[in-house]
Amino acid sequence: MSVHHGFRATMTARPGRGDEVIALLLGAPSLPHPDCVVFLVGRSAGDPDVIHVTEGWTTAEAHSAFFATEPAQTLVAELQKLITGDSQYTDEVPVGGKAFVR
Amino acid sequence: MSVHHGFRATMTARPGRGDEVIALLLGAPSLPHPDCVVFLVGRSAGDPDVIHVTEGWTTAEAHSAFFATEPAQTLVAELQKLITGDSQYTDEVPVGGKAFVR
Repeated sequence: MSVHHGFRATMTARPGRGDEVIALLLGAPSLPHPDCVVFLVGRSAGDPDVIHVTEGWTTAEAHSAFFATEPAQTLVAELQKLITGDSQYTDEVPVGGKAFVR
Repeated sequence: MSVHHGFRATMTARPGRGDEVIALLLGAPSLPHPDCVVFLVGRSAGDPDVIHVTEGWTTAEAHSAFFATEPAQTLVAELQKLITGDSQYTDEVPVGGKAFVR
């Protein structure tokens, strides 16, 4: 499937709460969503509370529709409790490659 | 497979050469390599000459061994001709997720 919408978000967990943020993200309702083609969670090796998510969606509309759902908003609310400050966003649209991280 | 080594590189293609850089990266010898678990190519929507690669490897040793091979060094040399300035690296180790971009 091709990707026409994407972004990368970097967030900082409250001190020591990085594992909880990772667990929330790896259980995100985006992952099984058919229009979510890329959902890659990464972490800083130097600071395990700095966490990145790179997302790629078939369309911006599909992402917006998903983001308005209750599961998505629940995830956002849960994340807000665990992170400090605002997430930073980078303009990145995934174009190809692989990721089979288990 | 789990990832114990990773990074994210951001490079800027010479003006208008972004497509060639993407093509080189999507043909990179890293992609079929069994120790390369994540190789995600992304591109700025705002500036198609800004290109990102997020890599995840089973170990740092596996990556170093691969990087010393002729195919890897040939890729680096080819990329050097197409990019301007130095690539910027971000400390990111992929921890989970999916990417099936074709």
